[in-house]
Amino acid sequence: MPKLNIFKIGGDIIEEEKKILAFLKDFSDVKGPKILVHGGGKRATTWAKKLSIPIQMENGRRITNKETLDIITAIYAGQINKTIVANLQGFGCNALGLSGADANTIKAVKRPVETIDYGFVGDVIMVNKDWLCKVLEQNIIPVCCAITHDGDGQLFNTNADTITAEIGKALAKEFEIKLSYCFGLPGVMKDIKDSSSLIEKINQKSYETLLLTKAISAGILPKLHNAFNALNGGVNEVAIGNAEMISKAIPYTSITLT
Amino acid sequence: MPKLNIFKIGGDIIEEEKKILAFLKDFSDVKGPKILVHGGGKRATTWAKKLSIPIQMENGRRITNKETLDIITAIYAGQINKTIVANLQGFGCNALGLSGADANTIKAVKRPVETIDYGFVGDVIMVNKDWLCKVLEQNIIPVCCAITHDGDGQLFNTNADTITAEIGKALAKEFEIKLSYCFGLPGVMKDIKDSSSLIEKINQKSYETLLLTKAISAGILPKLHNAFNALNGGVNEVAIGNAEMISKAIPYTSITLT
Repeated sequence: MPKLNIFKIGGDIIEEEKKILAFLKDFSDVKGPKILVHGGGKRATTWAKKLSIPIQMENGRRITNKETLDIITAIYAGQINKTIVANLQGFGCNALGLSGADANTIKAVKRPVETIDYGFVGDVIMVNKDWLCKVLEQNIIPVCCAITHDGDGQLFNTNADTITAEIGKALAKEFEIKLSYCFGLPGVMKDIKDSSSLIEKINQKSYETLLLTKAISAGILPKLHNAFNALNGGVNEVAIGNAEMISKAIPYTSITLT
Repeated sequence: MPKLNIFKIGGDIIEEEKKILAFLKDFSDVKGPKILVHGGGKRATTWAKKLSIPIQMENGRRITNKETLDIITAIYAGQINKTIVANLQGFGCNALGLSGADANTIKAVKRPVETIDYGFVGDVIMVNKDWLCKVLEQNIIPVCCAITHDGDGQLFNTNADTITAEIGKALAKEFEIKLSYCFGLPGVMKDIKDSSSLIEKINQKSYETLLLTKAISAGILPKLHNAFNALNGGVNEVAIGNAEMISKAIPYTSITLT
């Protein structure tokens, strides 16, 4: 089965010009089919502040009203996505920026209101596998931003980590898939202040032990939950580490089922 | 030869929710291959004002510094483009939003500095015909915003009318092409205050007479110049009129070479 690399980068790296350019250069050098997924929450927050639009967070998730969705769509799908695409083109990588609405790439439903109404936040229900495969066949590299749609004219804010996992699961029958989540730390750590506490390998069994013994910080749990969701959906490996792991032989956390 | 309809809509219609939705519904009902090109200068100006970024115009063209380009990229390629794409998806039209950087759709060079430095304004040098044909073959409808790139990492602001003409010329060997420029007036008029002064047909010969006799207002001249540029490049017909001409049997200006 052909291999497919899916990378996700977050807001921290996007805001540091040198880092993002170095990452995009390394990404363009990765051989074979690949997909990039990006967020951009940090810049969206900066712009919301500039425009005096209040930011409302609940459990680390942005409450997305109409005004906030307008900013997020502008920043994620416009400013950040097109800057990434143009830079990748400059590195010889034929990138194609996509929101979930474009060619119906990712469909979602509004997150149901339980205790909190997150507003225009969507939970993924469909990834357009056939279209993504056709794009990859043409050696075109999808660059997906964290925006989805409901197929009925409504855009949604959707977590970029989740989008990465859902794309991986949707393509798992066609490809041997590795997801790489790039963030500000070397990987999953027992003590985030001590880089020697990096856990280089995690599988289902050791994950359960880590959970029971509360040996890892709570902040990383959503990422791990996401990772096992992807693995249980057919993804072969999930890597969690900093952006330099894309090209350098540095340790990171590799997560597999067994 | 198959027919291809290319429509261009401007900032006025984009800012009126009822009008833009009516237009997009009509657009989605147009049979056969089609492309939509849009601007968005009005909203970019609103956002620049909100963000206290000065707006500099010369000969009706925006001087585009780094800050202005950031806003334009956010508004054109993000907010406006994705809202249009999501609405078209809602009308059953499988739209794909594209900037010039996406899949290298439209390449440009920085406008040479003569008396004025327009900043990050690009003149089109290449339209990726093969890619656009492959998209259309899949019954996917390109929605192009007025952003181009230089292939070396730089995005540019580019006039949407020009992009429309250049796309038409690039595809003129594959399709019989009609360009429709939708704006706030019924078409080319001798007196813009008198709708009965609409000129329903213009060809090369009558155009020259109109120019010599100064029978039309100066404001429409760039549009006419663009139209003849497209016709001389192989486009079959250029329509200039208001957005309702897309579906209603109302008069507009039809421009052909002979």
